[in-house]
Amino acid sequence: MGELPAKVSIREVGPRDGLQNEDPVPTGAKIRLLDALSGTGVGRIEAVSFVHPKAIPQMADADEVWSGATQVDGVRYSALVPNSRGAQRALAAGFTEVEVVVSASDTHNRRNVNRSTAESLDDIAGLIALLHDAGATAEVIVATSFGCPYEGDVDPARVAGIVDRVVADGADRVAFGDTTGMGTPRRVRELVTAVRDRQPDVPMLLHFHNTRGTALANLLAALELGVTEFDASVGGLGGCPYAPGASGNVATEEVVHMLHDMGVDTGIDLDRLIEVAAYAEEIVGRQLPSGVLRAGPRTRLG
Amino acid sequence: MGELPAKVSIREVGPRDGLQNEDPVPTGAKIRLLDALSGTGVGRIEAVSFVHPKAIPQMADADEVWSGATQVDGVRYSALVPNSRGAQRALAAGFTEVEVVVSASDTHNRRNVNRSTAESLDDIAGLIALLHDAGATAEVIVATSFGCPYEGDVDPARVAGIVDRVVADGADRVAFGDTTGMGTPRRVRELVTAVRDRQPDVPMLLHFHNTRGTALANLLAALELGVTEFDASVGGLGGCPYAPGASGNVATEEVVHMLHDMGVDTGIDLDRLIEVAAYAEEIVGRQLPSGVLRAGPRTRLG
Repeated sequence: MGELPAKVSIREVGPRDGLQNEDPVPTGAKIRLLDALSGTGVGRIEAVSFVHPKAIPQMADADEVWSGATQVDGVRYSALVPNSRGAQRALAAGFTEVEVVVSASDTHNRRNVNRSTAESLDDIAGLIALLHDAGATAEVIVATSFGCPYEGDVDPARVAGIVDRVVADGADRVAFGDTTGMGTPRRVRELVTAVRDRQPDVPMLLHFHNTRGTALANLLAALELGVTEFDASVGGLGGCPYAPGASGNVATEEVVHMLHDMGVDTGIDLDRLIEVAAYAEEIVGRQLPSGVLRAGPRTRLG
Repeated sequence: MGELPAKVSIREVGPRDGLQNEDPVPTGAKIRLLDALSGTGVGRIEAVSFVHPKAIPQMADADEVWSGATQVDGVRYSALVPNSRGAQRALAAGFTEVEVVVSASDTHNRRNVNRSTAESLDDIAGLIALLHDAGATAEVIVATSFGCPYEGDVDPARVAGIVDRVVADGADRVAFGDTTGMGTPRRVRELVTAVRDRQPDVPMLLHFHNTRGTALANLLAALELGVTEFDASVGGLGGCPYAPGASGNVATEEVVHMLHDMGVDTGIDLDRLIEVAAYAEEIVGRQLPSGVLRAGPRTRLG
């Protein structure tokens, strides 16, 4: 095991990526969740997405949620947008950090947005310009970066090529999503290395799913390569992509629990975070796939 | 991430450690589970324990299970015993690999067997001699090696001291159990290093629980240190990881799935193993905590 970074930056994605993949919950609960997360010490929160309410009813109240939540000093909030209409809504709501998504796999991208990866990249070039003109930063999230549920393996060189393109178009940051939990530590190493070889300077964030149990192993492999930015979802909010028990997003409290025990600082109060995970479980009304929520941290003795 | 071993040896513990921590299942189902596992290509199986039937009714039929199962050439079978009566039963049943257990933590050991760790170590010295006299090998499993649910942290030096003692008493192998899932990669590194520094030659096996999501990360950390022997339980048999006192064994198919994708050979046919995991779920009558059983391997495309 190599040297680990002293500190990592967690972006909490439960309010957006998590709740977008659960049955709709009341606006008030979303606001309380956001406010509770803002009080955990987490440095970044993906708050909402500005998407068409018919396509994603879970986010139909994004404006109300955002205007109802308390923005805490020192927390960076971001929003995800699918197109220029969404970007304009995000800017109007006051967001200065905005994310856009493209799938590394052509088939996955077509199933999601009915266009090829190349076509989406053309759109994203325009979105980056729009966001920059308004003084916001643009992060490009590359979905299916560690494998595609339709095509199988995704060549790290293909993902690195996408990074080349979006960096040339002005992207401020990139993120790599393990959309259906197909990543393993080897693939993390291959992808991070492939991207770093070509774009050593672009900030990079990794987004792991625990569908096949590998999320924390993948995170460890990334840490050993010096990656210091990770998404995670409180309680593992984000639905069961296959069946009950098959989890999606890695739970923030599992990430923080492991990191803190390894001496890696996150700035997050774990006990407070676990309380928020219990609240997240309450608002979605089902047991969330979080071992640390169930068993408590290793420091809780019997 | 360092170089990984080309091959690791998995010991399947579902029939013993798994079923011992589930509600009792019929003898015939245990035999079918053992036989199915013997056909997966796994190299080692912990088959039964010879314990008092009043203490552990789940293993009351150990002799019938073992005599009913087919022993496959090339598979090493082992049994766990708590004392000399159990050791004699194991030897009479024909076992040549026998395991005994002691807890690194005094409190945990007292709660389990009402004696101190030191007293149990004295007993174990006698058991090792008994087994050796009969031509069998003796493995000492050190429970709570990565933390105790009553005492908290367990000093790696204490575990290393236990290893010194049992090696002096003739133990052929040692295993370290993360009994309640308190291990993290840092603790794996510290323990493996502490033991290797003092006993570089004793074969070492690691037994991880996924109670707090860290099992595969711990396994990765151990692989990077060159550890090549691991326990795992098909389907994650062994009790809900969230129930008080239950075990939360890491699922064999999650271990094998990750290892194979990293180019580490186990000799196991993953598809066949997943079929056995589905059978394990059927015989215990509840959903087992295995993402790979739920979602299928990453190579199964939609």
